[in-house]
Amino acid sequence: MISSAQLANKCAVNAAQVRKDLAYFGEFGIRGVGYHVKDLLHDIKKILGLNKEWRMAVIGIGNLGSALLSYKDFLKQNYKIVAAFDINPPNVIGRVSEKLGKPVEVLHINRMKEVAKERKIEIGIIATPPEAAQNVVDLLVEAEVRGILNFAPTHVAVPEGVMVKDVFFTTVLDNLAYLLSNM
Amino acid sequence: MISSAQLANKCAVNAAQVRKDLAYFGEFGIRGVGYHVKDLLHDIKKILGLNKEWRMAVIGIGNLGSALLSYKDFLKQNYKIVAAFDINPPNVIGRVSEKLGKPVEVLHINRMKEVAKERKIEIGIIATPPEAAQNVVDLLVEAEVRGILNFAPTHVAVPEGVMVKDVFFTTVLDNLAYLLSNM
Repeated sequence: MISSAQLANKCAVNAAQVRKDLAYFGEFGIRGVGYHVKDLLHDIKKILGLNKEWRMAVIGIGNLGSALLSYKDFLKQNYKIVAAFDINPPNVIGRVSEKLGKPVEVLHINRMKEVAKERKIEIGIIATPPEAAQNVVDLLVEAEVRGILNFAPTHVAVPEGVMVKDVFFTTVLDNLAYLLSNM
Repeated sequence: MISSAQLANKCAVNAAQVRKDLAYFGEFGIRGVGYHVKDLLHDIKKILGLNKEWRMAVIGIGNLGSALLSYKDFLKQNYKIVAAFDINPPNVIGRVSEKLGKPVEVLHINRMKEVAKERKIEIGIIATPPEAAQNVVDLLVEAEVRGILNFAPTHVAVPEGVMVKDVFFTTVLDNLAYLLSNM
């Protein structure tokens, strides 16, 4: 068992906040006693969408794409790269991610629709140059991929029902620059 | 000139919020008229710490570090990579970033302190494996670098007066997974 006070301590917030946040999602724990750790963990994972494996494709296998293919923390957390795509077959098709143990064959991007269906891809990670990003998004949308993680430094348009999260390195730097300027 | 209503429209917020947000930092614009665009831009840049060039070093020149060395948007926004470091001289020292036009020589990490001072490095970008990150942070701190952008998937400890921003790819994916699970 764990109490809201213990949880609060671990998260550096207060116990009332822990109880309030959990209450937002339903009823948890036993008043005056606390929470079953195992049950709570299961429930929180479910709330967060982390109770399942997410099958992902990386598109654009340059330096960044290669770094993503060998990003070990993905696997630790149930994020599984099941496909890699690039526009430029002669250079990269067949290149593999050795660090992950299991090699990922890089396929031509024109196989997106077929492969996305076959391998049940739910998240597409865009690591292409910015000028290629919208085209890749359109291919992903056509392949019914609903989640997009966009590393290309440009905003992309998607239809309703598709979620995009941008990772713009300059945005994080802007944040750091602001903090450094106001210390 | 631009009015708070026009600004609000561009930012997809309301005009009162624009005025309130700006008021937080001082007095801006002319009541009933609006803001001088050029002055406002200058003031906002200053508030955000974007009115200057930020001199940065990338540490760890694997795939991710190489991707950062050729990330074009840094330069567009006054973020300048002035040094690159790695622990493994035979493989990478002297490797250059061709895409940025101007090559960056990769130096051995033991030159950090000397080079950081010489080149006035203010931000260190960590692109090493997680097990090396704390060591690199300690070197940066010793070299009086006050800002750290940490791409290594691990938390690092810094003394007071040093700011760290983590970029954990799994954290962004967690966010996306949550959104996709609750659509």
